[in-house]
Amino acid sequence: MNRYAEILNHEISIYLQSLPDDGIYLPFKYILNLGGKRFRPSLVLLSTELFGGDIQEAIRPALGIEVFHNFTLVHDDIMDSAPLRRGKKSVHTKWNLNMGILSGDVMFAQANELISSCYPHHLKEIISLFNKTAIEICEGQDLDMQFENRDIVELEEYIDMIRLKTAVLVGCALKMGAIIGNSNAKDANLMYDFGVNLGTAFQIDDDILDLYGNELAVGKQSGGDIIEGKHSALMILSKKIANPSQLEQLNLFLSYNDAQKKVKDVKALFNSMNVKDAASELKKQYYSKAVKSIELLSIQDAQKKLLLDFAENLMNRKF
Amino acid sequence: MNRYAEILNHEISIYLQSLPDDGIYLPFKYILNLGGKRFRPSLVLLSTELFGGDIQEAIRPALGIEVFHNFTLVHDDIMDSAPLRRGKKSVHTKWNLNMGILSGDVMFAQANELISSCYPHHLKEIISLFNKTAIEICEGQDLDMQFENRDIVELEEYIDMIRLKTAVLVGCALKMGAIIGNSNAKDANLMYDFGVNLGTAFQIDDDILDLYGNELAVGKQSGGDIIEGKHSALMILSKKIANPSQLEQLNLFLSYNDAQKKVKDVKALFNSMNVKDAASELKKQYYSKAVKSIELLSIQDAQKKLLLDFAENLMNRKF
Repeated sequence: MNRYAEILNHEISIYLQSLPDDGIYLPFKYILNLGGKRFRPSLVLLSTELFGGDIQEAIRPALGIEVFHNFTLVHDDIMDSAPLRRGKKSVHTKWNLNMGILSGDVMFAQANELISSCYPHHLKEIISLFNKTAIEICEGQDLDMQFENRDIVELEEYIDMIRLKTAVLVGCALKMGAIIGNSNAKDANLMYDFGVNLGTAFQIDDDILDLYGNELAVGKQSGGDIIEGKHSALMILSKKIANPSQLEQLNLFLSYNDAQKKVKDVKALFNSMNVKDAASELKKQYYSKAVKSIELLSIQDAQKKLLLDFAENLMNRKF
Repeated sequence: MNRYAEILNHEISIYLQSLPDDGIYLPFKYILNLGGKRFRPSLVLLSTELFGGDIQEAIRPALGIEVFHNFTLVHDDIMDSAPLRRGKKSVHTKWNLNMGILSGDVMFAQANELISSCYPHHLKEIISLFNKTAIEICEGQDLDMQFENRDIVELEEYIDMIRLKTAVLVGCALKMGAIIGNSNAKDANLMYDFGVNLGTAFQIDDDILDLYGNELAVGKQSGGDIIEGKHSALMILSKKIANPSQLEQLNLFLSYNDAQKKVKDVKALFNSMNVKDAASELKKQYYSKAVKSIELLSIQDAQKKLLLDFAENLMNRKF
């Protein structure tokens, strides 16, 4: 994956140089230059190579996926009133609301342009896949915002939300690479399922790490989700597991104004209820589904091993 | 054009029924149901028929143009802090900022989906045209926002801004119809030029009508551009025409706090300088360019006449 990230960083820098140097293109370049692991576009390249495709065809669509992802970050940061992104000022904080909205819009438009620069015989399929994904991601963000105003969110609703908001883009990136690699339709769909389930497991892991991750490595305070009162995987599971007295305790702790005490007491209660184990179990369910898709692929075992190692690596991160 | 608007209103209502009935789709349906003349999508149908194309192929791309246009209205209203749209509450006023941003985003995504449902052999060309146009429209809105913070805007800069922000979508709609109608490349480009020049003339006309239109028919107070201190065609031309003492007067009038007195005095000054005639002259230049493109088309004279009548009608509106 590091090799892909290197290739992509090089291509991103050439691409950004081709854009104007003023107005809405300043935040565009700023957010793309904040770094990140280039996870999603790397998946496009990985999948293309896995099926023996031409990596040169994959690069601009992969950039499109990255630009689109960054567009969602810019608009999400406005909607979440997030002052920071990757430790630096978010776009609407560094500039203003209007620049946040409009630079996001032009990033979406440029992402469309990049993605449609695949070879013409793949265009219809790639465009359909991407448009469906973009629509679902908006719908996922919509659900996420709706949940903020709800007292109760069911586990199935939560899973549906993270699938739409996060996981489908992972599936889209992998399927896009498969299409560019001229895979058969069955394999392309298996790559999609692999990605969606892996992305779901990854997001559940994210919720676990928010409370149980290495604070220094994660780069933010532990328990942010608890402080914000988010319906995270941990919180939803805890409410499912809790007996009436534990539920009463939980609600009491959540009403604390002192953020540190709130996190400490909620975490202790979670520990007594084995909430972390329940979340890990849930994560494993989706990880297993992802692995099953790999097994069904009609590619060499050595290549399946490659995918498996990648998935396993992703699941074993400590931050 | 009325026939097309009727067809489109029918298709829009079927389309909207196919969308979910909650969350971000509520503002989506709201803004599309606020009406409007369906001017841009009608141009797609008109142009398709002009070249003998299948109007059934044109309908979904035409809806895409209308949905995209409405997306830009929703986001522009946020950026302009506009409380009203077509006499009703703007989306971010009726709901909130986040709903304005996200419903706009999903409208853009759904517009992409609609536009790419043309026949596959037209896809590459239509997608390229549309992506280029969407990018330019963002760039036009960027220029418009930049101008708000400028003391001086040159006429050429202003023309460039309205070309990007408004006129290219008219050109895009007409060229899209030509492509769907299987026109030759030369005719498709002539339709584009026709649209861009007509759209530019239309926008200059809009600026003239803002001060000289029938107040009741326009549906808003005369002189809104003057009150807001906008760099309109009239304002830019007046500054070009003015001698030093007139310029001094103009700046004095523009500094008035009393909006009514400001409009009255500026208008009187404009009249003494024949600013309206200068703007009409400018408008005619672009109108003439538009007409020249029609003449060069390789279609029947009767059909050229149809386009000419349409263009003339558009130019002779009183509101």
